[in-house]
Amino acid sequence: MNKLPDGGLALASLEEQLLQPGVKGLPITEPLRQGAIGVQRWNVLAGDTSFPVAVLKQSALEHNLDWMQRFCQRYGAVLAPHGKTTMSPQLFGAQLGNGAWGITLATISQVQIAYRFGVRRVLLANELVAPADIRAVLHLMKEDAGFEFFALVDSAEGVARLSQAVQHSGLQRPLPLLVELGIAGKRAGCRSAEQVLELARAVAQAPGLELAGIEGYEGLLVSHDRAADVEAVSAFVAQIVEIVRQADKEGLFGGTQILLSAGGSAYFDLVARGFSRIDGLSRPVLPVLRSGCYLTNDHGFYHGLTQELGEREGAVLKDGLLPALEVWSVVLSRPEPTLAILSMGKRDASYDIDLPLPLLAHRPGDAKPQALPEGARIEKMNDQHAYLRLPEGHALCGSLQVGDLIGCGISHPCTTFDKWTLLLAVDDDYTVRHAVNTFF
Amino acid sequence: MNKLPDGGLALASLEEQLLQPGVKGLPITEPLRQGAIGVQRWNVLAGDTSFPVAVLKQSALEHNLDWMQRFCQRYGAVLAPHGKTTMSPQLFGAQLGNGAWGITLATISQVQIAYRFGVRRVLLANELVAPADIRAVLHLMKEDAGFEFFALVDSAEGVARLSQAVQHSGLQRPLPLLVELGIAGKRAGCRSAEQVLELARAVAQAPGLELAGIEGYEGLLVSHDRAADVEAVSAFVAQIVEIVRQADKEGLFGGTQILLSAGGSAYFDLVARGFSRIDGLSRPVLPVLRSGCYLTNDHGFYHGLTQELGEREGAVLKDGLLPALEVWSVVLSRPEPTLAILSMGKRDASYDIDLPLPLLAHRPGDAKPQALPEGARIEKMNDQHAYLRLPEGHALCGSLQVGDLIGCGISHPCTTFDKWTLLLAVDDDYTVRHAVNTFF
Repeated sequence: MNKLPDGGLALASLEEQLLQPGVKGLPITEPLRQGAIGVQRWNVLAGDTSFPVAVLKQSALEHNLDWMQRFCQRYGAVLAPHGKTTMSPQLFGAQLGNGAWGITLATISQVQIAYRFGVRRVLLANELVAPADIRAVLHLMKEDAGFEFFALVDSAEGVARLSQAVQHSGLQRPLPLLVELGIAGKRAGCRSAEQVLELARAVAQAPGLELAGIEGYEGLLVSHDRAADVEAVSAFVAQIVEIVRQADKEGLFGGTQILLSAGGSAYFDLVARGFSRIDGLSRPVLPVLRSGCYLTNDHGFYHGLTQELGEREGAVLKDGLLPALEVWSVVLSRPEPTLAILSMGKRDASYDIDLPLPLLAHRPGDAKPQALPEGARIEKMNDQHAYLRLPEGHALCGSLQVGDLIGCGISHPCTTFDKWTLLLAVDDDYTVRHAVNTFF
Repeated sequence: MNKLPDGGLALASLEEQLLQPGVKGLPITEPLRQGAIGVQRWNVLAGDTSFPVAVLKQSALEHNLDWMQRFCQRYGAVLAPHGKTTMSPQLFGAQLGNGAWGITLATISQVQIAYRFGVRRVLLANELVAPADIRAVLHLMKEDAGFEFFALVDSAEGVARLSQAVQHSGLQRPLPLLVELGIAGKRAGCRSAEQVLELARAVAQAPGLELAGIEGYEGLLVSHDRAADVEAVSAFVAQIVEIVRQADKEGLFGGTQILLSAGGSAYFDLVARGFSRIDGLSRPVLPVLRSGCYLTNDHGFYHGLTQELGEREGAVLKDGLLPALEVWSVVLSRPEPTLAILSMGKRDASYDIDLPLPLLAHRPGDAKPQALPEGARIEKMNDQHAYLRLPEGHALCGSLQVGDLIGCGISHPCTTFDKWTLLLAVDDDYTVRHAVNTFF
């Protein structure tokens, strides 16, 4: 008997919940049912919302969902988008509804949240080590025979812990693992093909475990030298493919198919191409890509990387990924001619790769937002404030006043999503249509 | 009739709420009532919790609450601790229960949350500009005659907006404002005493508004040159005092007392001393300090600053503030002899001033944690991982293995609190006693 929650019900219940005054971005003074947000017809440019407010452009999201589905079809790969990026049940739903094979996650807390909202196939792109975390996963696998779960392993200690835990748990099916190939000087993962194969043999022999595939994360190779990156990523992907061949030759894989997984948001084309070259193994191969940032893209780091990716892909997928996530704030102060202080800070927008990118200025009541010049930039953020430095001698910038709105793009979606419990999905005219929740 | 929620009930309801599996740090597989956390007797060092987990050392919190109360008494100042640091209703309660005069906040979302949990005196240390935010504040003031609220203003546009909004709202009492004195090249605030006085006159004359005091934020002056800082802060505080004298001479203040407010977490001693020198005005003066980080202090930036502050204070308050906030994680991987990969990242601990500071290593089952040597340091964090670099030739570091626990101090509490919805309050032996919530 399955005592676990029904994910569909949990997702529906988000629309039923009463949002309390104090949820960032919402202009409410009384509790409001989340499902009633759309009928308020709030418009961000009219200044209807509270500021700062995080908005998702619905048309861009839909475009990106479609683009990625076409991309995966082109290469015969499947997508398990990294859910840590958004941790949003509604966005997981949109991804699964647009062909995603499963959801990738980084921690067991994230797995438990995704499960609660209906996700039933999870790739944990991480080592599973803490006893409480192992227990939590085995509990889900035991209670729900339909819950598919894969984790990574890169140490004999990890194999021993997991094998012992499965045996103690009474779980009636093996725990599927992918051995992680790492990169010297970088994060987790075995440092050589030989170490991977040695561990793969250990997994294959360990009671309660099953070798499901081989995994790596090429995203750690991103540097400022694109040509070198492309070469290094291609070599890394080829190494994974070679390890898979060897492990298959040794008959180490369990299960009905062999998972190959890699693919962050920067070089998933190289991964897809590299993985598509493998065939002739003892069982079908499933290349699993894991990009998380494709969904919203951004105006900074990932936008640049995926534009280059689009160029590598050529005509078919040339329409590229579109930035979907913006943070809007209000000018709180104009203390100096070239300085505006905005009502957003480190609590509201990413600051780990780049500071936010000011795109648009708008005075509620005016016909439409004006593009800010390139010289306008966020030069610093405190916890709750941003310093917008304005170029001298620019009419729009000079006339910017207290109460005007500023729309910023961000760089690195993961570290903006985690600053909001609710993001507002908007039309192209910035009318709010509905909200999506996050759980961090 | 007051239709607004009863703050005490809301606070009590947190203990009643069912926490779902997936709340970071909790080792649960079934929903658990928050009030039942203490009786679980989880011990972090035994590896009972999930990792990462954020812990608050109860004894250090209590010490800091007491220390700050003694500090304020010494100077005849009151404390409105900046609530943006923790955004935790239980910690607001502890602060108010230990003599705090009110809570300082930075945004109207924060004000609404604090109000929901019973805070009835708020200093908004920020300009109040967005129409939805102004409406939300006036709603609270109108519905609850016992709700005291103060905001900052630094522009004629701001004064006009607020005066108009109060008149339209039908609020039967004036909105009390403090004019902000800023610092050239820094954040919001008028750039000269003359501008402050001009705006103070405008506030005094504007229908619906009342000049309650003068405010500044000396924390923006923190640099690497301590002697220069001390001089600049003292001069800034003296300037506020001088403006207050002049504004009082002109009869600009409304209300029964005059608020002077400044005091972040670095130099609040200089502020308290500067403010204590004022007397002989037309009505009583209330110096309001606003430190937010005193409560947990930290192991980095603020610890250094408050140690120096303690030295300036001398014997009476020499016992100083103690770091109360730690993030514990587990070693997920030992891929290279001098590298351990930890299960915490940018989603779990501050990275804006310094990266986390590894303090302790512990193997569950061992008698007690071992201090890590100074050479052990977090050299990088990804979203969900930290790279712990270990010195060569150190026995403890060499023997660190997958599954061992690492306790890190943090630098800058504000940007660690906002990464947790629940923090666990622990005894000195790391047994979990209860939980506190945050609302970001």
